[in-house]
Amino acid sequence: MIRLYDLAGARDDCRFSPNCWPVRMALLHKGLQFETVPWRFTEKDAIAFSGQGSVPVLVDGEHTVFEKWAIAEYLEDAYPHKPSLFGGPGGRAPAYFVTNWTVSVVSAGVIRLILSDIFNVIHGKDKEYFRKTREQRFGMTLEAVTDGRDKRVEEFRNSLQPLRASLARSPHLSGEAPAWTDYVVFGPFQWARSVSHFPLLTPDDPVFAWRERMIQLFNREADKVHVLEK
Amino acid sequence: MIRLYDLAGARDDCRFSPNCWPVRMALLHKGLQFETVPWRFTEKDAIAFSGQGSVPVLVDGEHTVFEKWAIAEYLEDAYPHKPSLFGGPGGRAPAYFVTNWTVSVVSAGVIRLILSDIFNVIHGKDKEYFRKTREQRFGMTLEAVTDGRDKRVEEFRNSLQPLRASLARSPHLSGEAPAWTDYVVFGPFQWARSVSHFPLLTPDDPVFAWRERMIQLFNREADKVHVLEK
Repeated sequence: MIRLYDLAGARDDCRFSPNCWPVRMALLHKGLQFETVPWRFTEKDAIAFSGQGSVPVLVDGEHTVFEKWAIAEYLEDAYPHKPSLFGGPGGRAPAYFVTNWTVSVVSAGVIRLILSDIFNVIHGKDKEYFRKTREQRFGMTLEAVTDGRDKRVEEFRNSLQPLRASLARSPHLSGEAPAWTDYVVFGPFQWARSVSHFPLLTPDDPVFAWRERMIQLFNREADKVHVLEK
Repeated sequence: MIRLYDLAGARDDCRFSPNCWPVRMALLHKGLQFETVPWRFTEKDAIAFSGQGSVPVLVDGEHTVFEKWAIAEYLEDAYPHKPSLFGGPGGRAPAYFVTNWTVSVVSAGVIRLILSDIFNVIHGKDKEYFRKTREQRFGMTLEAVTDGRDKRVEEFRNSLQPLRASLARSPHLSGEAPAWTDYVVFGPFQWARSVSHFPLLTPDDPVFAWRERMIQLFNREADKVHVLEK
């Protein structure tokens, strides 16, 4: 059976990685059997076989694949007769663009709004590592990163305009039915609701309604884990 | 023959619209015969038949289509046996996302860097209309909008990161060969080089090299008009 190493918090059912969630949704989209293995930031030994220091890491028989986009392409190519993640070959390059947009706009925006909350849900053994590496990356304390978020969230919401405009045309970013572009953008939103009460979106935002549709997919998979923002 | 109403400046061969250029490239991509009709901002009567006050407006026999995305979809559906603009059905929804990203990030960024330069190339009869409508929209003079651009251009370059990341994987945004997503993002870059000497990009930027590839397409179509930034 396929194995997905999946970032976990103190609770085994706290699964908050914005990069693992798209993979999990992609596996469900493809209808593949899989199990997730809870993994903590400091358990480097557990995934050393992959040559990586972070998740997602996916093991499918003899194949070890890491990094969300590489995994998406792997699943598409290894299981071509299962439902397509990209809607066919022409969808692959623009889906990669959406993946890049997610990383540099959505995830980069979300982390500045929830970083200090992540600290509260992670495993005790990860706390020192997490604080040290993240404070080094941002050049300030975790708490300083999220300071003033009530005001700054407006800028984040504005940055979602391309997504909002697309949702005016179809219920999903990938069109009538969801596919990879939806799963990858959903990642940072599921990340936020897994670790924080902070409201990223207002209920009147079409992105809010889309996120609800995403939560309902696959028998509400995104609610089968522990979440803070309902 | 297909007719494209195309925004023109004082010179008939100054064709600077970021919204008309993607259509022009799409027509060439499809290998369709067409002629462009130079149109100025204040020539509302000339396109009144379309119900629109701005271009692009495309007339194909009995069909009148306006707005760049609607025209792209029209061409794809009306000429299904010509080369696809979206690489097949799965590419359409993410291509729409890229179109929305272009509007709210690339075009919105470019206009704040070149607005006052546009004023210099437009037809004399458009100048009063242009200054009045744009100064109303921005709530400041044309000159104030572009003030400080030498510093602000950094932020614009940063906003191109999703494009840059995609170009690390393939020579075009649409993959190995160019298609709609490339044409639509190229629009604002061709706009800038048509009206301004201001360097939007640095030569070491992968986006710069991509823009060069776009300029070379279709026997250097983008250089057959009058441009300021070479």
